[in-house]
Amino acid sequence: MTAGDWSVPETEVLDAVGDAIDDHHAVLATVVDVVGNAYRRPGAKMVVADEGDGIGSITAGCLEDEVLAIAEDVVAEGRPHVEQFDLTGDDDVWGLGVGCNGVIDILLEPLDDSYRPVVDAYERGEDIIVLTVIESGASDARRGDRAYATRADGSLSFDASGWPDWLIDALEDPATELLAAETSDSLEFEHDGERVEVFVDAVTAPPELVIFGSGHDVAPVADLGSRVDFRVTVASFRGAAATSDRFPDADRVVSTSPATIRETLDFDENTYAVVMTHNFVDDHIALEELLETPVPYIGLLGPRERFEEIRDELRDGGVELSEEDLDRIFTPAGLDLGGGTPFHIAQSVVAEVTAIRFGREPTHLTEREGHIHERPSLE
Amino acid sequence: MTAGDWSVPETEVLDAVGDAIDDHHAVLATVVDVVGNAYRRPGAKMVVADEGDGIGSITAGCLEDEVLAIAEDVVAEGRPHVEQFDLTGDDDVWGLGVGCNGVIDILLEPLDDSYRPVVDAYERGEDIIVLTVIESGASDARRGDRAYATRADGSLSFDASGWPDWLIDALEDPATELLAAETSDSLEFEHDGERVEVFVDAVTAPPELVIFGSGHDVAPVADLGSRVDFRVTVASFRGAAATSDRFPDADRVVSTSPATIRETLDFDENTYAVVMTHNFVDDHIALEELLETPVPYIGLLGPRERFEEIRDELRDGGVELSEEDLDRIFTPAGLDLGGGTPFHIAQSVVAEVTAIRFGREPTHLTEREGHIHERPSLE
Repeated sequence: MTAGDWSVPETEVLDAVGDAIDDHHAVLATVVDVVGNAYRRPGAKMVVADEGDGIGSITAGCLEDEVLAIAEDVVAEGRPHVEQFDLTGDDDVWGLGVGCNGVIDILLEPLDDSYRPVVDAYERGEDIIVLTVIESGASDARRGDRAYATRADGSLSFDASGWPDWLIDALEDPATELLAAETSDSLEFEHDGERVEVFVDAVTAPPELVIFGSGHDVAPVADLGSRVDFRVTVASFRGAAATSDRFPDADRVVSTSPATIRETLDFDENTYAVVMTHNFVDDHIALEELLETPVPYIGLLGPRERFEEIRDELRDGGVELSEEDLDRIFTPAGLDLGGGTPFHIAQSVVAEVTAIRFGREPTHLTEREGHIHERPSLE
Repeated sequence: MTAGDWSVPETEVLDAVGDAIDDHHAVLATVVDVVGNAYRRPGAKMVVADEGDGIGSITAGCLEDEVLAIAEDVVAEGRPHVEQFDLTGDDDVWGLGVGCNGVIDILLEPLDDSYRPVVDAYERGEDIIVLTVIESGASDARRGDRAYATRADGSLSFDASGWPDWLIDALEDPATELLAAETSDSLEFEHDGERVEVFVDAVTAPPELVIFGSGHDVAPVADLGSRVDFRVTVASFRGAAATSDRFPDADRVVSTSPATIRETLDFDENTYAVVMTHNFVDDHIALEELLETPVPYIGLLGPRERFEEIRDELRDGGVELSEEDLDRIFTPAGLDLGGGTPFHIAQSVVAEVTAIRFGREPTHLTEREGHIHERPSLE
């Protein structure tokens, strides 16, 4: 497989799953368990399409080729299969902890219509939990059995025909927690002396990045945003020349007006907005409209003084920004990374949106773990 | 012009300048002065090639088309021209401060061999200052006169035949400062009642990003790194399958061995290293070699424990890391932005390298300017 197919955004992997369901000879490989450090975590997926090509990554590249070979057998046998790779003996070669180490369990399954609800939910922008029996000593569950759970009125709603009630009961709490944490994991349950292992895969809807503007500088933001798994919408105003071929990395390009953005687009807690119209009036109105939505991030390009001018105009119109409003307005948008080219600016903005999405403080990882100096000498 | 041509990395703009010199009908447009806020700063360049297409950005897209039109006249007249755009009256439409505001002076010049030394220096990875007379009331200087300055033994060496001595003397100190700050600016001088304005353009060599590794995960780092103006080298070990077509975004792909990287490659203060071989022994040796070079950044992928194991092995070999060594080792490499896909990891690493390159603390820009809350109300 090529590096390009390996490093596609997660959104494209799910798109590829959708495309591959119909060809009836595709296999989905999913990391279901990891002991030790790994490059990818449980839930990482690779689609093996009809031609034997892989799309997506399950390790740092150490197991992909082996898994492609095993996928052929899975197609031939037509049954799900869990393969365990124990790389702990490879310490000398692969080293400690960067992906090619530890014990990694990978579920390989013929890709069929049982995965369709997942693709559909993802497409609709809804979270879904995919439940798969990995191992079973129970008479009423067998490897490959599949169920789903979605959010409904604050709890989970299960679509799990044929699954024993005791197992659903046991799954409810941990599945709720995993979904909240956007994490996938394999869980073991025992009932009447029978042991069942279920992989709980929280397939969360991709975050939306809505970029307001139609200037050239929008394209690099759409480009970088799409690479880190945002579904990107470019929203231009007053019929500005915002066509899809000007923004090839955007998932969609819409034409609207600042005052009607809430009618044209959906804004929820999973939507991140970047306002860069270069037009004072448009930015002003768009900001005012966005504050009526629950979006957690409103990035406004330009110097702080520009925002303060907008704020003054809002005040003149009787709108006083609350603390909650101010907490989600980022202006000037972006992290302080330096550089002045269009891609520098886009990198700064997309890195900031990513950090907000994952609830991180954008410090150096090396500092987060405590400065190297502070570690007591082992000698 | 297309958004893609507008947002090309600065490295590609300089490459395009080199290509365009030979066609004798190309024009170089350079921002030489800005009053007020602007999207791009002085020194930003757009090449207008023979066919009238622009490559590079000089504003947020507000003036590019106008400049393309003026470029035709410059070709016809064969003389440099400075055009001033006063956008201060456009406040209502363009708003305060995001690129389409303020007064912007743009130098348009027929691109000829007088720009060759700049392209050559850039290609060699050397800084160069380009001096251009913008306005002159003096008899011994006229618009378009060109000179160069390069670093030599701690001071500047001028290549400025025909330029009056008084002007070179006056330029030396400010040009030295601008080069150190990687900044370009227009400067005014007076001598015997005659006024001369010179644009001092610090064209600094692009930073080098050397990625050690040959896994799939190298490709996204090369991709993002090249977009933010690094010249990217992928260095693979032991003849691993590292060919240019696996890493299309790398400027070069070299095969070497960990112990001989200093023989194969040049490492200076403008080189940033990311070590991601996934091989403990290779990472260990590469790190030890890199510490013998003056590189300001050594990013090591993987958990902290892995570095500590390498550190222990270095100790066993009699190598104790100094404070200075530890200050440039970043492990785990990257900013804490969250996410676990290959592009998330690459984004985190490239954002960190960018921040180190520009000497920034990667906080939110909105925090750097003082939290919005803290501003006293204007009412």
